[in-house]
Amino acid sequence: MFQTTILVRFGDLDAAGIAYYPRLVNFLHVAFEDFFAGHVGRTYPQVFKEGLGFPSVKIEIEFLSPVHYGEHVTVGVSVLKVGRSSVHLQYAASVDGRDVFKARQVAVVVDMKTFKSVPLPDWLRERFEAARESV
Amino acid sequence: MFQTTILVRFGDLDAAGIAYYPRLVNFLHVAFEDFFAGHVGRTYPQVFKEGLGFPSVKIEIEFLSPVHYGEHVTVGVSVLKVGRSSVHLQYAASVDGRDVFKARQVAVVVDMKTFKSVPLPDWLRERFEAARESV
Amino acid sequence: MFQTTILVRFGDLDAAGIAYYPRLVNFLHVAFEDFFAGHVGRTYPQVFKEGLGFPSVKIEIEFLSPVHYGEHVTVGVSVLKVGRSSVHLQYAASVDGRDVFKARQVAVVVDMKTFKSVPLPDWLRERFEAARESV
Amino acid sequence: MFQTTILVRFGDLDAAGIAYYPRLVNFLHVAFEDFFAGHVGRTYPQVFKEGLGFPSVKIEIEFLSPVHYGEHVTVGVSVLKVGRSSVHLQYAASVDGRDVFKARQVAVVVDMKTFKSVPLPDWLRERFEAARESV
Repeated sequence: MFQTTILVRFGDLDAAGIAYYPRLVNFLHVAFEDFFAGHVGRTYPQVFKEGLGFPSVKIEIEFLSPVHYGEHVTVGVSVLKVGRSSVHLQYAASVDGRDVFKARQVAVVVDMKTFKSVPLPDWLRERFEAARESV
Repeated sequence: MFQTTILVRFGDLDAAGIAYYPRLVNFLHVAFEDFFAGHVGRTYPQVFKEGLGFPSVKIEIEFLSPVHYGEHVTVGVSVLKVGRSSVHLQYAASVDGRDVFKARQVAVVVDMKTFKSVPLPDWLRERFEAARESV
Repeated sequence: MFQTTILVRFGDLDAAGIAYYPRLVNFLHVAFEDFFAGHVGRTYPQVFKEGLGFPSVKIEIEFLSPVHYGEHVTVGVSVLKVGRSSVHLQYAASVDGRDVFKARQVAVVVDMKTFKSVPLPDWLRERFEAARESV
Repeated sequence: MFQTTILVRFGDLDAAGIAYYPRLVNFLHVAFEDFFAGHVGRTYPQVFKEGLGFPSVKIEIEFLSPVHYGEHVTVGVSVLKVGRSSVHLQYAASVDGRDVFKARQVAVVVDMKTFKSVPLPDWLRERFEAARESV
């Protein structure tokens, strides 16, 4: 499974001194970007510049344990399902073996010029399929 | 049902020119804060200062339609369930009658000094119950 | 002088429980947006959609007193100088008469399609001039 | 001079597709954190947990060139002056040799329990002095 590590910055913290939950939702996007660079083989900035976008239509996230300043959060990214113009992703995050959050996301594939959904290009479908978790 | 309105700011937008989804998750917290000021009868800053916190343990959010710059997002907040030291909330957001997102959230009640869960104080339980949606 | 009021939200706070300084820099943009709605007479989202942008080229900001959760920050916006395709702005922020930050900003006027500087349109120049602080 | 590199994320962008300036101000804090880890020899999270904070009292920042999605921003951090309980820092940021922003910051040293300024501890003064730019 593809994994990336995100360092918790001061700007991610809330007044309770732990990561603010919308910032942890942002970690999902950071992990998604790293998944492109590390697994898909083209960076998300390149793909985005070429006109493809992946807006979220649904996110479910469970916060299992508070995330603290300076912790390195390891986020595993896997694919649950690849549709014609959508992808279902799963994220599992931990700090030194302690589970901190897990999430599921449905993203659709859109043409950034029209913001209409388009079929997932074959080269990308192949890479998403390769990250499919064998259950 | 309690409702508040949030103006979409430049800083909420992403490179596609629509509200970035972690920023819409932040709107849930903004609406939760306004629910305290407008429905509970004490502001969230007061309650927080007195030592109660409401960290999220679960969020489900569906993005139904893109949210654009300058739009006024009306967010309805209602209570689904009140536990001993938790509350289940529901959010429904629209712009001029167009549904833009809906969400469910489970928050727990903690003592901010110990970060341990504590029973919901009676005065607060009464206010949450009063916002319970009759299904 | 044009003034607007910004409520300090939970998401603006840092781990010290006060507003995080990049979030106060964001307040400058919020105040700039409100200046358009309240003084210029057309909202910034409208002007932006019509193709004008105002990227900052310089900001100086002094943090005079910590800003706390739930405070209402009053931000005064005035114009120091209007150039051919730039504007020099000044911000003075206070909470209940206590000065919290002051800032100066130089913004240039660009065509959002080309991102090249363009002359300030006359109707906008007139409104900026009307907000010029008489020193 | 100490240098660190920050990758521009999707969440750093504005509707113009370039880094939003309050996010670049956040880059100053990220670079300051990396300066602790890489030059001072103790991480900022450790120092912060031990009760020292470094709130900004002044920032001047010039935006020299737009910063784009996916760019690696190299930020040099140097010290201009070390006071009894303050430090003057300088930041110079570039992307592939193209200058993108430069900044100066004055931070004060405070005890996080009282939020009062305290003298810079000797071990930290020594490290700040070692990063002093010879002009």
